[in-house]
Amino acid sequence: MFEKYRVPLDKKLDLSDYDPADKPFSGDSKGDDKDRMAELALKLDELQTILHANSQRRVLLVLQGMDTAGKDSTIRAVFQNVDPLGIRVANFKAPTPAELARDFLWRVHRVVPAAGELVIFNRSHYEDVLITRVHDWIDAEECKRRYTHINNFERLLTDSNTRIIKCFLHISFDEQRKRLQERVDDPNKHWKFEITDLKERSFWPQYAKAYAAALSATSTEYAPWYIVPSDSKRHRNLMVAELLVQAMTDLKLSYPPGRPDLVGLKVE
Amino acid sequence: MFEKYRVPLDKKLDLSDYDPADKPFSGDSKGDDKDRMAELALKLDELQTILHANSQRRVLLVLQGMDTAGKDSTIRAVFQNVDPLGIRVANFKAPTPAELARDFLWRVHRVVPAAGELVIFNRSHYEDVLITRVHDWIDAEECKRRYTHINNFERLLTDSNTRIIKCFLHISFDEQRKRLQERVDDPNKHWKFEITDLKERSFWPQYAKAYAAALSATSTEYAPWYIVPSDSKRHRNLMVAELLVQAMTDLKLSYPPGRPDLVGLKVE
Repeated sequence: MFEKYRVPLDKKLDLSDYDPADKPFSGDSKGDDKDRMAELALKLDELQTILHANSQRRVLLVLQGMDTAGKDSTIRAVFQNVDPLGIRVANFKAPTPAELARDFLWRVHRVVPAAGELVIFNRSHYEDVLITRVHDWIDAEECKRRYTHINNFERLLTDSNTRIIKCFLHISFDEQRKRLQERVDDPNKHWKFEITDLKERSFWPQYAKAYAAALSATSTEYAPWYIVPSDSKRHRNLMVAELLVQAMTDLKLSYPPGRPDLVGLKVE
Repeated sequence: MFEKYRVPLDKKLDLSDYDPADKPFSGDSKGDDKDRMAELALKLDELQTILHANSQRRVLLVLQGMDTAGKDSTIRAVFQNVDPLGIRVANFKAPTPAELARDFLWRVHRVVPAAGELVIFNRSHYEDVLITRVHDWIDAEECKRRYTHINNFERLLTDSNTRIIKCFLHISFDEQRKRLQERVDDPNKHWKFEITDLKERSFWPQYAKAYAAALSATSTEYAPWYIVPSDSKRHRNLMVAELLVQAMTDLKLSYPPGRPDLVGLKVE
């Protein structure tokens, strides 16, 4: 269904081939989309409950995107009906000294999903081939080594019963401008705004290049990247939800079988 | 409002003085209660957002109760509208060897709320004066020492800007029987059921005694215990939500002031 948004492995990728204003859900009315979103949110709740009951498989959703692409609001919308007990969000900020003192995957490995868990990475190990590369904190060779480490790491997780879904929330330069301006114009949103956001914005072309290289080098068969058009929040949320529901449905999970030893048992 | 459910400090407590079937929300119709719950859930979302924006105070909700008292479903109901990014649930299971190799508060301290965070303890450090005491893994003297350590620890958290709300979800022996029987009778719920649940149930009077002693010894002015009648799920959820909304409203938080340096700024 989302084949055209799936990043092919090792093919030179140009983000400008993907329109951030795309609306994958055709001309449906807003009302229909809202119904579909509600339906998906409920479905996800059900799938998560079975994942937890079954307690074998693990699910990892990776969200990446430029500033204001909407990682936080996607999480809010997609998981609106999922039991707070059933998901865990791992936020990756600037690394601490303890984290910098180890390899870049150390802090990531500590928070991967356990059996029966659904975990969302809000930013991820990909920051270590993006912001680091844009600012030349690592060179091209180190970056390439890291792609390999990432692929190996994600293979390890996959081999250990983890289903990985990776979404790049793709917005346009102009959409980012609008969203930053909104934050500036609303004093109640100033706490979300850093002057450094503007500085990072000035590196937009470098980020686009770093993203293209990273997505292409790490979109594997077992952990593919999807480019999610995100200028429309509605379409963005729907697509992430659809991708996740599809991936979790593919696991074909069911409740563990009833236990014969409990049949007819009377609790006193 | 809930004064009668608040545990007085150091007064001998008898749980049988509290009726688990109590309905604090009087004769309201189910419809009214449902509306109120929806209202509280939305209010809580708003309060959490401000708590996060403000990023100074911390909030800790402690949930304790016998098996099937409904800790999990309370979390689900009360936090139905709160942004998954805005809360963190810490589940306390049987301690690991690494945890047993330290003092009993070590694993708890690691997961206390950070500035701006709302954290729910699903079970808590209180397990270490309950199951441990019921099975005589610790003696009365050690238990008393632990009460003191707990009070000191909660004082430390309070002094560090943390608001602590502690709820004991109080169900009757017969209500537990019904709920366990439901799990037995539904093969899809077998995964939630352990034969050891029945064994623990046989220690009911000892648990009631251990709870009474612990609640009374640790219901301080800065971190009081509330006994939440929980035979009715509806009343239980409402009361926990009301307590939390009240406590968070008392913090009188507001958005941080707008920043003068952002006034009139145009994003290019």
